Amino acid sequence: MTADYQKILDHIAIDVRPSFARGKIADYIPALAAAPRDCFGMAVICVSGDEYVVGEADRRFSVQSISKVFALNMALRAIGAPLWDRLGREPSGNPFNSLVQLEYENGVPRNPFINAGALVVVDRLMDVCADPKVAMLDFVREAAGCDDIGFDQEVAASEAAWGYRNRALANFLKGFGNLRHDVDEVLDIYFHHCALAMSCREISRAFVHLANGGISPRTGAAVTKPEHTKQVNALMLTCGLYDSVGDFACRVGIPGKSGVGGGIAAVIPGILSICVYSPGLDESGNSLAGTRALEIFTTESAISIF
Amino acid sequence: MTADYQKILDHIAIDVRPSFARGKIADYIPALAAAPRDCFGMAVICVSGDEYVVGEADRRFSVQSISKVFALNMALRAIGAPLWDRLGREPSGNPFNSLVQLEYENGVPRNPFINAGALVVVDRLMDVCADPKVAMLDFVREAAGCDDIGFDQEVAASEAAWGYRNRALANFLKGFGNLRHDVDEVLDIYFHHCALAMSCREISRAFVHLANGGISPRTGAAVTKPEHTKQVNALMLTCGLYDSVGDFACRVGIPGKSGVGGGIAAVIPGILSICVYSPGLDESGNSLAGTRALEIFTTESAISIF
Amino acid sequence: MTADYQKILDHIAIDVRPSFARGKIADYIPALAAAPRDCFGMAVICVSGDEYVVGEADRRFSVQSISKVFALNMALRAIGAPLWDRLGREPSGNPFNSLVQLEYENGVPRNPFINAGALVVVDRLMDVCADPKVAMLDFVREAAGCDDIGFDQEVAASEAAWGYRNRALANFLKGFGNLRHDVDEVLDIYFHHCALAMSCREISRAFVHLANGGISPRTGAAVTKPEHTKQVNALMLTCGLYDSVGDFACRVGIPGKSGVGGGIAAVIPGILSICVYSPGLDESGNSLAGTRALEIFTTESAISIF
Amino acid sequence: MTADYQKILDHIAIDVRPSFARGKIADYIPALAAAPRDCFGMAVICVSGDEYVVGEADRRFSVQSISKVFALNMALRAIGAPLWDRLGREPSGNPFNSLVQLEYENGVPRNPFINAGALVVVDRLMDVCADPKVAMLDFVREAAGCDDIGFDQEVAASEAAWGYRNRALANFLKGFGNLRHDVDEVLDIYFHHCALAMSCREISRAFVHLANGGISPRTGAAVTKPEHTKQVNALMLTCGLYDSVGDFACRVGIPGKSGVGGGIAAVIPGILSICVYSPGLDESGNSLAGTRALEIFTTESAISIF
Repeated sequence: MTADYQKILDHIAIDVRPSFARGKIADYIPALAAAPRDCFGMAVICVSGDEYVVGEADRRFSVQSISKVFALNMALRAIGAPLWDRLGREPSGNPFNSLVQLEYENGVPRNPFINAGALVVVDRLMDVCADPKVAMLDFVREAAGCDDIGFDQEVAASEAAWGYRNRALANFLKGFGNLRHDVDEVLDIYFHHCALAMSCREISRAFVHLANGGISPRTGAAVTKPEHTKQVNALMLTCGLYDSVGDFACRVGIPGKSGVGGGIAAVIPGILSICVYSPGLDESGNSLAGTRALEIFTTESAISIF
Repeated sequence: MTADYQKILDHIAIDVRPSFARGKIADYIPALAAAPRDCFGMAVICVSGDEYVVGEADRRFSVQSISKVFALNMALRAIGAPLWDRLGREPSGNPFNSLVQLEYENGVPRNPFINAGALVVVDRLMDVCADPKVAMLDFVREAAGCDDIGFDQEVAASEAAWGYRNRALANFLKGFGNLRHDVDEVLDIYFHHCALAMSCREISRAFVHLANGGISPRTGAAVTKPEHTKQVNALMLTCGLYDSVGDFACRVGIPGKSGVGGGIAAVIPGILSICVYSPGLDESGNSLAGTRALEIFTTESAISIF
Repeated sequence: MTADYQKILDHIAIDVRPSFARGKIADYIPALAAAPRDCFGMAVICVSGDEYVVGEADRRFSVQSISKVFALNMALRAIGAPLWDRLGREPSGNPFNSLVQLEYENGVPRNPFINAGALVVVDRLMDVCADPKVAMLDFVREAAGCDDIGFDQEVAASEAAWGYRNRALANFLKGFGNLRHDVDEVLDIYFHHCALAMSCREISRAFVHLANGGISPRTGAAVTKPEHTKQVNALMLTCGLYDSVGDFACRVGIPGKSGVGGGIAAVIPGILSICVYSPGLDESGNSLAGTRALEIFTTESAISIF
Repeated sequence: MTADYQKILDHIAIDVRPSFARGKIADYIPALAAAPRDCFGMAVICVSGDEYVVGEADRRFSVQSISKVFALNMALRAIGAPLWDRLGREPSGNPFNSLVQLEYENGVPRNPFINAGALVVVDRLMDVCADPKVAMLDFVREAAGCDDIGFDQEVAASEAAWGYRNRALANFLKGFGNLRHDVDEVLDIYFHHCALAMSCREISRAFVHLANGGISPRTGAAVTKPEHTKQVNALMLTCGLYDSVGDFACRVGIPGKSGVGGGIAAVIPGILSICVYSPGLDESGNSLAGTRALEIFTTESAISIF
């Protein structure tokens, strides 16, 4: 089996090259627009601890919305079920940064993976963490076994400078009484979480407990409880891919979470975690080559959850 | 393992009783309003062919939207990928009979499990079947190995008499050019499909190929292609439970499809299919005791896809 | 003053010619698509009884939504304030045939001039008229003093054959319980009302009581009560011009009602009624040359209500 | 005629008393919640210069959205037609502080009287005024002939402290590129404009040019051009009364603008301006006794524009 994964990765790295040119680099903030269009990396971490990589698997990039999975992990661990008092867990059927549904549903975000939902998660983390920025670094450094993971301050500053839509969402939530903390502080933490810089290998390591019932294969520690692990995976599958949730489920068939930085992290429960990076995005904001790479991976390895 | 399933089912049948009183019987048509509130049945069919049942597993009831899975099966088999030319495969984030999203998205239904999407599936079946009502009976009789499955004509007539919202949807689709056939003929077929009467055991049998890569364990025949099997399961998980898709994924964690008649059919890929019946519905229109029964089943058997 | 109106009309007829080419003929039904793009007519009827015309003021055309004013007149006269129990009187901010707002507002149409509202008006007329088609003919023949006004049966048949969106609206209303009569009968009446064929002169005559406190200058009879006259004019101003209500109010500044057949009827309270016909429409569905003609008329005559 | 107005006002002041108890004081900010529920005042200013008052016509209150008329006046005077490049002039059919329509229409507010539209007006004023707060004071002091009109700084501070929804709107507009200036500066000016404190007499005086073709009867100066006067009146009639535009047009029948402080200012073109104050609001946010007072006024004086 071991040889197969490496062979599949090597094959994928060649196969996806023609698609690089069709992707569109996120340009809503200057700091992301400079990403190299032809860059590609991929890492697989098995629950056995085996690792397989191809391409620039150790190059760090802006994780963006992939951080929402880490924040949800942290919030479920610290707060548990009461997290859902002010937050839904249904797919939205609307753009990730839409205010429409939030208005119709009185300020309760549909799920933790749209921006409004992630802001509520941050607000809840502020109740239980002295410093949710430090807590996030602690979480991913521990999960990935890598002490120098940090925030890309240029990206964080760029998000803050251009984040009018997110500022609108946060004020809207506050107007509905669904943020308890100061709007600017919530946004500052949120922008830093999005600006986390990690490599495919590091992200895969920080996801592999989700393939292993919540237990880190590396340390043996329980990163999340089993029932929370199931929830996180269920929410990634139903809400993790922007407006392409169903398409991704049909084509790739595993729980995943994308970010506009070009990364997609995914999990095959019981078997492995996987992360792919290629900054060119499709129309839904998901990595174009990344989605194709994951589709090839589940097809050639013949493992999907369906 | 065999003994366990029976034990779990027996336990469930007792455990869910207190919830019967809280359910609400669908009353949008008189023919459904007479369903017995305290009725409960459940059937499990393993890919090995083993069957386990409890309660009124052989009592037939109105399958309603569960028939949308059969129709999708038939359409994928006959038409394949071009089915998606006039039909999406994303969760809707809106009520199953909403016209709002359909208007904003120019008459292309979000997925085949909302009513508008099922009408488009019927319209496509009319291109390839001489008589899609007969074809549906042939499909489920063959899949369930039971020759006397039929339509409840009283329910079909009741749907037709009271189906103003569905008639609105069909005319709306026709106005957008996304129905090719006569509106009344499409609706007649759709209402009959919904009025299919089957038991838990029959529905489970008709679903078990979806747990077995598309192959019927009973006959060895390919009911659906492997890639279509994956799609149907992916769409059930992301779109199969009305407005409780995410909640069902978090709690139950397997692909399923509910009907307002009180049935929920589900699949654990590689292992088994399962169907539960209890007519009392929760606020989302899913069987209240049925959802709880499936949650207990996946928890006690410790099998979910996540 | 008399001389001025004729001079203004003559001037307008020349001035609007260049705009004919920019209009778009309604083509949603074949029977309307054949309208002559360069046709133009206009008629003014003063409360004194004086009449002024230019161009093809006696050519009959399909009045379409202008008939909604007649239907509202008839319903207010027969039913009075209870008409508003199932019908709003606010501008919609949405397309005239939208189902979105109707869904959010539980089947109560925003006003009598959007299609859904007009269907409710017809449904109410069916409570009080033996035959609302005959009643409409009686109303407009009496109001216009012209016994041979009738329905264009080709247009009525074309509306019925292609009216999927209206059929969707009517079934949607019925589903909400806001139509009491048979959907097909309501639609048949509605389609006939829209298919009324009248000339600018006839329409102006049938509107002039609205400029005269409800009294017909020709017969001295009270066509509408004073308070209903005020309401009809207020509703035309706030809801009568599809998505260009505000623009029309700013530019023309008088209550009016347009139809996709190319007519616009308007009222200057206390002074006159006016009707213009030119079948080329602007993007909102209002007669392009007709709107311009009315703008010139109120500017040159220096009479607006503002 | 003179005697009549006074008699009507005196009668109204008695007639509306029973309705005070049914109104709801705006309480979204603490500074408004203290308004006296039983307070009532009314002022009429004729184009002849004659003034009629009743009750607390000289008591100052928070004008709130009535200031949007002054801002629009100022912007039309300074900028003219290009104001409409980034701003519509259609009724919205949605709540005054809704973000829904703004999202669907890409950040172009429907009209200058919803909050988003007023923010765009402020942004445009910042292009042409050194200090739009001072400019507003200059405008209303000159128009009302009263040099000590000012902002209620407590209200302005309260708006700023609690104005999350407006902050959301402003950031949303900025995200769409439809605000050029700094969000906080725009909001500061907007909150001050809303916090303008004026009496019924002062507001009526500041509106009377709108009844007089743009000319101040007091000074003879052109406050607005005739075409802008027509536009402002048309927009008040179609967009000035929150969600009760049509109802107000039917019942009262004249252009008006309400504020949640309890004031309603209105205009009878060619004849007079009128302002009424009573802080109890109806469900739409319009003064309950104020709307009733204006309905009686137009009914008893038999002057409406329809």
